[in-house]
Amino acid sequence: MPLGRWASVAHPEIDAVELDDVLHALADPTRRTIVRMLLAEGDRACGTFGLPVAASTLSHHFRALRKAGILRQYDEGRQRMNTLRLDELDARFPGLVSTVLDAAK
Amino acid sequence: MPLGRWASVAHPEIDAVELDDVLHALADPTRRTIVRMLLAEGDRACGTFGLPVAASTLSHHFRALRKAGILRQYDEGRQRMNTLRLDELDARFPGLVSTVLDAAK
Repeated sequence: MPLGRWASVAHPEIDAVELDDVLHALADPTRRTIVRMLLAEGDRACGTFGLPVAASTLSHHFRALRKAGILRQYDEGRQRMNTLRLDELDARFPGLVSTVLDAAK
Repeated sequence: MPLGRWASVAHPEIDAVELDDVLHALADPTRRTIVRMLLAEGDRACGTFGLPVAASTLSHHFRALRKAGILRQYDEGRQRMNTLRLDELDARFPGLVSTVLDAAK
């Protein structure tokens, strides 16, 4: 868990997270790659994913994942960090994230 | 399996079905209800689902499910029937449909 404060952006309570929003958020290969990297390697700053998409597009993807309750963002110095909400998601939608990631293999 | 012919509409080969399309198609409560009813009760004509949505909306939902490879449609007399492609989907995306349906409970 991060030591810094949550970024000044909205994070939905897990009970308010809708399945439809999670499915839409995971219905994109770049967003699934972000989730997979966070799952495999832990918290990570937005600028360090090395994905072949424009910064504005990447920003859109992080926002979609955050609004769907899939990740939290917090500020650490000048970096915006991302952390997966896997335990919360697994409690609310058992096995969903891993099943979707496996399906994409 | 149906005895009638497939309806004269496009059905993607299962290998051409994209995960993104399946997730988008399942990201809707009415479409999940259609899938759940087909799963529980077998093949069924479009007009017999008794869902509280307009016929045009329902038609849109069946089309979305068909294009995503989730169901097949065939004509039987004057009725358009629907059949779930569960075995094919489970071979391609193991456990995905049941995990999503369970998550919606």
